Amino acid sequence: MLKVDGDNLKVFALSSNEPLAQKVADELGVPLTNIGLQRFSDGEIAINIEESVRGVTAYLVQSTVDPVNDNIMELLIMIDALKRSAVKTINVVMPYFGYARQDRKARAREPITAKLVANLIVEAGAHRLTTIDLHAAQLQGFFNIPIDHLTTADLLASYVNEKFGDKDIVIVSPDHSGVSRARDFAKDYGWPIAILNRKPRPNKNKISEVIGDVAGKLAIVVDDIIDTGYRTISSADALIEAGAKEVMSCATHGVLSAHASQRIAESAISQLILTDTIQLKAEDMSDKITVLTVAPMLAEAIEAIQNQHSIH
Amino acid sequence: MLKVDGDNLKVFALSSNEPLAQKVADELGVPLTNIGLQRFSDGEIAINIEESVRGVTAYLVQSTVDPVNDNIMELLIMIDALKRSAVKTINVVMPYFGYARQDRKARAREPITAKLVANLIVEAGAHRLTTIDLHAAQLQGFFNIPIDHLTTADLLASYVNEKFGDKDIVIVSPDHSGVSRARDFAKDYGWPIAILNRKPRPNKNKISEVIGDVAGKLAIVVDDIIDTGYRTISSADALIEAGAKEVMSCATHGVLSAHASQRIAESAISQLILTDTIQLKAEDMSDKITVLTVAPMLAEAIEAIQNQHSIH
Amino acid sequence: MLKVDGDNLKVFALSSNEPLAQKVADELGVPLTNIGLQRFSDGEIAINIEESVRGVTAYLVQSTVDPVNDNIMELLIMIDALKRSAVKTINVVMPYFGYARQDRKARAREPITAKLVANLIVEAGAHRLTTIDLHAAQLQGFFNIPIDHLTTADLLASYVNEKFGDKDIVIVSPDHSGVSRARDFAKDYGWPIAILNRKPRPNKNKISEVIGDVAGKLAIVVDDIIDTGYRTISSADALIEAGAKEVMSCATHGVLSAHASQRIAESAISQLILTDTIQLKAEDMSDKITVLTVAPMLAEAIEAIQNQHSIH
Amino acid sequence: MLKVDGDNLKVFALSSNEPLAQKVADELGVPLTNIGLQRFSDGEIAINIEESVRGVTAYLVQSTVDPVNDNIMELLIMIDALKRSAVKTINVVMPYFGYARQDRKARAREPITAKLVANLIVEAGAHRLTTIDLHAAQLQGFFNIPIDHLTTADLLASYVNEKFGDKDIVIVSPDHSGVSRARDFAKDYGWPIAILNRKPRPNKNKISEVIGDVAGKLAIVVDDIIDTGYRTISSADALIEAGAKEVMSCATHGVLSAHASQRIAESAISQLILTDTIQLKAEDMSDKITVLTVAPMLAEAIEAIQNQHSIH
Amino acid sequence: MLKVDGDNLKVFALSSNEPLAQKVADELGVPLTNIGLQRFSDGEIAINIEESVRGVTAYLVQSTVDPVNDNIMELLIMIDALKRSAVKTINVVMPYFGYARQDRKARAREPITAKLVANLIVEAGAHRLTTIDLHAAQLQGFFNIPIDHLTTADLLASYVNEKFGDKDIVIVSPDHSGVSRARDFAKDYGWPIAILNRKPRPNKNKISEVIGDVAGKLAIVVDDIIDTGYRTISSADALIEAGAKEVMSCATHGVLSAHASQRIAESAISQLILTDTIQLKAEDMSDKITVLTVAPMLAEAIEAIQNQHSIH
Amino acid sequence: MLKVDGDNLKVFALSSNEPLAQKVADELGVPLTNIGLQRFSDGEIAINIEESVRGVTAYLVQSTVDPVNDNIMELLIMIDALKRSAVKTINVVMPYFGYARQDRKARAREPITAKLVANLIVEAGAHRLTTIDLHAAQLQGFFNIPIDHLTTADLLASYVNEKFGDKDIVIVSPDHSGVSRARDFAKDYGWPIAILNRKPRPNKNKISEVIGDVAGKLAIVVDDIIDTGYRTISSADALIEAGAKEVMSCATHGVLSAHASQRIAESAISQLILTDTIQLKAEDMSDKITVLTVAPMLAEAIEAIQNQHSIH
Repeated sequence: MLKVDGDNLKVFALSSNEPLAQKVADELGVPLTNIGLQRFSDGEIAINIEESVRGVTAYLVQSTVDPVNDNIMELLIMIDALKRSAVKTINVVMPYFGYARQDRKARAREPITAKLVANLIVEAGAHRLTTIDLHAAQLQGFFNIPIDHLTTADLLASYVNEKFGDKDIVIVSPDHSGVSRARDFAKDYGWPIAILNRKPRPNKNKISEVIGDVAGKLAIVVDDIIDTGYRTISSADALIEAGAKEVMSCATHGVLSAHASQRIAESAISQLILTDTIQLKAEDMSDKITVLTVAPMLAEAIEAIQNQHSIH
Repeated sequence: MLKVDGDNLKVFALSSNEPLAQKVADELGVPLTNIGLQRFSDGEIAINIEESVRGVTAYLVQSTVDPVNDNIMELLIMIDALKRSAVKTINVVMPYFGYARQDRKARAREPITAKLVANLIVEAGAHRLTTIDLHAAQLQGFFNIPIDHLTTADLLASYVNEKFGDKDIVIVSPDHSGVSRARDFAKDYGWPIAILNRKPRPNKNKISEVIGDVAGKLAIVVDDIIDTGYRTISSADALIEAGAKEVMSCATHGVLSAHASQRIAESAISQLILTDTIQLKAEDMSDKITVLTVAPMLAEAIEAIQNQHSIH
Repeated sequence: MLKVDGDNLKVFALSSNEPLAQKVADELGVPLTNIGLQRFSDGEIAINIEESVRGVTAYLVQSTVDPVNDNIMELLIMIDALKRSAVKTINVVMPYFGYARQDRKARAREPITAKLVANLIVEAGAHRLTTIDLHAAQLQGFFNIPIDHLTTADLLASYVNEKFGDKDIVIVSPDHSGVSRARDFAKDYGWPIAILNRKPRPNKNKISEVIGDVAGKLAIVVDDIIDTGYRTISSADALIEAGAKEVMSCATHGVLSAHASQRIAESAISQLILTDTIQLKAEDMSDKITVLTVAPMLAEAIEAIQNQHSIH
Repeated sequence: MLKVDGDNLKVFALSSNEPLAQKVADELGVPLTNIGLQRFSDGEIAINIEESVRGVTAYLVQSTVDPVNDNIMELLIMIDALKRSAVKTINVVMPYFGYARQDRKARAREPITAKLVANLIVEAGAHRLTTIDLHAAQLQGFFNIPIDHLTTADLLASYVNEKFGDKDIVIVSPDHSGVSRARDFAKDYGWPIAILNRKPRPNKNKISEVIGDVAGKLAIVVDDIIDTGYRTISSADALIEAGAKEVMSCATHGVLSAHASQRIAESAISQLILTDTIQLKAEDMSDKITVLTVAPMLAEAIEAIQNQHSIH
Repeated sequence: MLKVDGDNLKVFALSSNEPLAQKVADELGVPLTNIGLQRFSDGEIAINIEESVRGVTAYLVQSTVDPVNDNIMELLIMIDALKRSAVKTINVVMPYFGYARQDRKARAREPITAKLVANLIVEAGAHRLTTIDLHAAQLQGFFNIPIDHLTTADLLASYVNEKFGDKDIVIVSPDHSGVSRARDFAKDYGWPIAILNRKPRPNKNKISEVIGDVAGKLAIVVDDIIDTGYRTISSADALIEAGAKEVMSCATHGVLSAHASQRIAESAISQLILTDTIQLKAEDMSDKITVLTVAPMLAEAIEAIQNQHSIH
Repeated sequence: MLKVDGDNLKVFALSSNEPLAQKVADELGVPLTNIGLQRFSDGEIAINIEESVRGVTAYLVQSTVDPVNDNIMELLIMIDALKRSAVKTINVVMPYFGYARQDRKARAREPITAKLVANLIVEAGAHRLTTIDLHAAQLQGFFNIPIDHLTTADLLASYVNEKFGDKDIVIVSPDHSGVSRARDFAKDYGWPIAILNRKPRPNKNKISEVIGDVAGKLAIVVDDIIDTGYRTISSADALIEAGAKEVMSCATHGVLSAHASQRIAESAISQLILTDTIQLKAEDMSDKITVLTVAPMLAEAIEAIQNQHSIH
């Protein structure tokens, strides 16, 4: 167990991912602090913090996943309550940062919603953000407060190595923009990488070319987010066609919208390895899915913040 | 029709109350400006404004009613899109201001969510707010931007007078805090007022006393919000018991949560008179309910802002 | 005596209420810190803090009462001096918050001066505010800094009980808006309440009705502020007429402007019970007036802030 | 008369110097806009603007002179009222900027009140400041908003030339820090200058040396502010002793505190020439005093702002 | 010539790229406004604007290229001067945004200098930014002010088509991250694309694979910035080795540091096509280099801002 | 050696004056913390802090001297890096504050660059500034953060006294604005002062008069900055002409631009006494120049900040 002073630190679980928050608290050896979270019949959120928090360092665990707007507002309201209760600092632990893909104006007159959300969090009163595998690293610059940007590449790769290290592995980037991620994933174990060439929009789910040698290998498609699942499934089909013996998929964030889980279950993918930055719905679980926990990583980050040493 | 220059002004309907926005635009003689409003399968809102808006004065019509968090976020995202598109000024027209009842810390460690929402709107980039019958007038002070605070007292009272002016009317405040509202309502027509004395919490739906003479009269209970309806129904029961001949209910904002509509339909209330600051769901409509439109009032306010004269 | 570390905490008395500041310091067992406060012949205020204050937590005791503008400016200048002297945090202890009644636009083109003053205090550099019985609880939302909002209901009610608890007491709200205050006052001792119905402006000093049974009783009129005294005197007259045996008046803040003290002395009120949030002028003191001190309450709040536990 | 569009511009006189504001309005050919300015019996200021001001450019004329704190607060409250009334821009015309001499920390733990006042004005909502002869030119940098910094050197010097140009004039700086001001004053008319050497504090009213030739001349002591008058009187005495035939005194701002006027009347100074940036009290007027008006200068500045051309 | 009102608009050339600013002004049919730009002997920049600018819309043309810190400070000082001179709006036209590649923390304890520069520009007082081909589109989100983000893809591609359209062209991305840029470049003319696979750092100038068919073709390497030139030269070598008949290089921004120009002159690249977002030094010019102007594109953007219509 | 806790405090040397930073660290008994400071070939600065800094109090030693813009940007980038690395507080130790002489608008449409630089430092994230002998004391008011403003008058004067105290000394102000500085310098040793009268611009290097007795004395010209040296050399010439036996020059900041050093070497000045707020170039050193160190003074200020006691 990590060493932190439980009197000065309080961990709060908001609605999106209570099991993860509980695990983080367990790693730190502190209880979760009780919050009275309520929804009125007209949909408004009411919060009442049930213990004294004056002068404490607060850690709020919340992933802004579906229902994303409720989860954002709940976070902001909780920050407001803590600010008015005179805590020392407010640390937002956001394993998954929703709206991250709306990070630039692709066309005229679009919002940059990721920046808006960043502004709202800071305006509400947050002092620091701890997050995992942002969709684009540039999002760090949307904030003027300190950010701890963690990555799951080691966690996922060491799991793959432990379970499947005896097989002939190739790490696959599902498109060009993911090549850096694939390289980071592969580098410690010396695995080769392959890249899928996709056709331009609107045919981005069509693959034009498999670059690299995948024949006879266990191909592991590495991504940051699995949302609808179309990209990872089309990757699997192309890899099988190119001679891969088996295809697995690895990602940090399992958004799994629009029945992605069922679609993947019926696909050529033999295994989907995710982390628990997002809490999986019970109906989305299946034998194909393995979920690794980021709780130790987050607990270590909190311990480092609390005891003011560097995060490795 | 009011005189405004349609080239410099654009009215946008967000999701909460498009019919009202359309009526406002009709009063002004301008079309609604098209917005591409979309929800992705993971619940995120996407907005794309479909016409050039450089240099225009924008009016966004949105009531932050259930689903309140979605409606707030939609508004903020739209403000962000307009700000980045270099409009001249962004005017939020919010007929109903959600979270207004969370306007103070009633207990330790509570948020002041109404202030948080005010801050978010200003931080996102709004320049001015037009709203109707705020739950407490002090909410004006939550903002540092100009606010136009309109009231429906005249609209509702003149309707009552026209329809029921020949009856023996008494205006009823459902509790002590609403007495000023009842007085404003009654003053132009010389109606008497009565007040209901309620027991302290948690028995606030029990009435201890009817102050004023209601026997044989048409009692009209006046309120700002009808939410669950329990308060207005308990008022009606007490008034009937005190000898009132008939009881009607009047309010600006028909939140009507938790099946309030059905409950009212089955109650002693003979008529419920509301405005359209909140769009009623089809299933909530009934013969008992009359809805007056605030569109002319909002259109006049917009015209006054646009042409820079005073709102009367 | 409360336990605080006098090296880290300094209490400063500004001009409005030095006796109260001294009592608060005594309760805390620390001396007042010396300030060189001067007025130049042209009316400008000069401040020089006479001891090192680097890194201390400063508590400034100031009620913004007449001369209200001088007292506000003195407070702001003192905050500026402390900010530039690198104190750790600046806590404003404002027993009475002047301009609180200007908290909304009642008519077009009015300021919201209470909000302005809130902004000035925060802009100057205050980190927290401790105050007592704000005119409207919503004023808490005028601030984005933490606020401790204390109430004197217990202090005043327990005094009344101790002195007059053997009499037949009724607690009276002088108008409708004060009913909650009267209820809070009465609830721990099971006293009944009565309410005075007032005529609408401009006859608000005329009482139309006494609701509740006051005949033969000791009627105690409860209010937050006694300013000109007209309201409390008209209450007393109406209560006597309604058969009350004796009338006393209780309030937190004794503004007592426009010779209120003399007027009350000549009125039907037998006792006026106030607190020392505002320092009474010597000429305003009389046998009728009892002043309870809020010093222990403020000292406890300071101790709680300093030692970071909750205020009960 | 200057050409301005009276519909878009409104000039307001606050309490400190209504006659000057009236003259400025007359120069511009517009009426003063009515403000309801009131003091409650407890000393609080109440403001209600009596005409519509939406979209106008407002000019507020206020010198922050004794009672300086009242005048500052009145200005800030008026700015708040205008901001909430949606004027286009708020221009503060402050002929005399009080607290300007508190512009640096001379000793540890002093405030910089001139900066505080600058911050308050901007925080309240002012967009621009027009002022005259700031005590130190660096005060311009206390603001991030545009400032028009006017000088009266030409106004005063041309008056002196017209009236006394036939005499043998020497312009005198009353101490070293005022030499630039004396030079500016003298340069267009080729007058020689002299400088008074003062002893260090606390004997700064003792003059150690008269530098330059003053014998037989009309010595004109030039300053920015005449406050208590001690400096200008000690200058006169030294100049007479050094052989000056006559001594006059010229300054922009006549603060005249602590009976300065009477003291000057009894001194060796034959004439005191001031401007009306500060309104002289009736009892301070005397035959010795001449007051030149800055109204045309201010009106031209307003006209330049309004019509967006450069101020010469 | 474009239609703009020269009275309301002023274009200023700062030091980095006066020829481009002159061309932009010519396109708009207005003269450049004179600025007195000076360097003192101690290296400090002095600016004095030589014409009245009250109420005008200012456009400052500055690329923050080497000497990048001087150019940034010059820009900020100029913005400060304009802000204090009461211009209406300050538009920064920054054809090349320096420090853009420092847009995220790649390692612990790094700055995000691109965000810092964005903050400085906004803090100084800029209202809007027009820029070309930002290194990452996410940089738009570093700002809360409106941004016009232009692209040169059409300009460069149509030039290539006009000059070499009869040849067998293939568009080449020099690494994976540039594939989108290559696609945008190729799409209107139906050119095929190829991609260069690079070895991981520190061997990123080694190419491991040429993906796509380049044999016998005119290969055009497309990039956003050419800095030291190593990447583009290594691309050319690999393409020649893979059978390309000829290799050209196209980029928006010609930084050309560390003698890149000479190195390219001696390389296998037959032509380098750049734009004038950065002014080329005379010694860097050669027969191999073609420079297309972005002046018409910038002038159209200015015209659209000025006349408030959409930029196409 | 001073007592500070080296775990909580880190001293960083930026590029302008590493020897001074080293001396300050030595006085404090702590090592300098390593920074990876780099210039890319395109002139951009890259910073990577090489040790963990979470929770530490950082002191950045940087004089913003030539190359002034590089030094400012380096400072701002370093502040950004520290802010994002979650240090506790960022203290800027700026022995020489560049651009300080651009502290007001002397003419229309000039910037106030000293204020701009102040804003940039605060915007970047600095919490406090320690500086020495600002050109005008009013610059303290350009900041809203605490400032420690140190002076070298004692350091320089006690050196002069020790070395030359047996001679017949007169302290000379090179113009009127420097008289206060000369007085402060002379007061502890009872030296007489003299003042040089200069002709108005553009002849300010011509001296019209020497006020005070210098004949046969060692005249010591005291100034804050020696930049081009023209002022101090013209002073020496005039003093010699007025009969001074020997002339020395004393100043805090040796900017020494435009070959000042060589010019002084060839002048009538026998000794130039400076401090090391600015690092002298090797080629500027000569036998005539003595450099006193401000390191102990800065170290004491840091120790006082760190241990939270007053600076004497």
